[in-house]
Amino acid sequence: MTAILWDHFLERQTADSVRGMTMKALGIHLLIELWSCNRQKIDNLDYLERIMAHAAEIAGATVLKSAFQDFNPQGVSGVVVIAESHLTIHTWPEHGYAAVDIFTCGTTVDPWKAAGFLKQELEAEEIQIRDFLRGFPHATGETEEDYGLVGRAACGNTNG
Amino acid sequence: MTAILWDHFLERQTADSVRGMTMKALGIHLLIELWSCNRQKIDNLDYLERIMAHAAEIAGATVLKSAFQDFNPQGVSGVVVIAESHLTIHTWPEHGYAAVDIFTCGTTVDPWKAAGFLKQELEAEEIQIRDFLRGFPHATGETEEDYGLVGRAACGNTNG
Repeated sequence: MTAILWDHFLERQTADSVRGMTMKALGIHLLIELWSCNRQKIDNLDYLERIMAHAAEIAGATVLKSAFQDFNPQGVSGVVVIAESHLTIHTWPEHGYAAVDIFTCGTTVDPWKAAGFLKQELEAEEIQIRDFLRGFPHATGETEEDYGLVGRAACGNTNG
Repeated sequence: MTAILWDHFLERQTADSVRGMTMKALGIHLLIELWSCNRQKIDNLDYLERIMAHAAEIAGATVLKSAFQDFNPQGVSGVVVIAESHLTIHTWPEHGYAAVDIFTCGTTVDPWKAAGFLKQELEAEEIQIRDFLRGFPHATGETEEDYGLVGRAACGNTNG
């Protein structure tokens, strides 16, 4: 179902399909491991906040809010709330490792683009992406349309 | 590995073990589907912000920041940054559905407790939890100690 969103350079594990699980999807959730990153970049709060917002925009999402925090002696945690759900990042500079997750609802946002952008920006030598549908189990459809991949009634339509 | 964290009343799918994947873990990530929730509760931003912070505390985590947004005509998105990573929630009141994820690093936080608390608070009739290790692949250990489930060098130790 997500083949149309797939960038060939990313290693993808279709975890949901491997488990034989079907899901009436309201959204797609990517768990992304980024290994051998640039250790200086992943310890820089301001830089990470900027590129996470940029990643959201590249995916076609609308950034609403963000909250970032750095740690002592190193490491950064950050979340970006988008109209279509969220992006998060947690970094372990001492291991060159960044844990990212991207959850998007609706059909207009492409989370794989954000993943590819972050791999490039953080200079990750290796990436692993596990993708999951979020929503309701037991859907019988096999096409994107059958899965009903739509957002909340007002996915992307914020109050205030 | 997570058996010691397991509350018997939660349906658990050991997705990582089903796939035969091993991971040198720095953290645990739960993807939680909550179905048939109280629709008024999951459309109430102030309430959700309060109970998500409470859920973090029940898990033993330290809340640092939160960012919540409501949608028109309904639905709420929210993230809570904790010293040990994050909690997020996205709700579709029209479906009685809430999508939660909880990512915790270190060994002092129990994300399953937060999941159980949220199920109860949101009056969810059904819950599904998929649990994943985050970190490095190809660990050979089979015990929690072997997996090296530890946080960032300063997991929980914030700047400022």
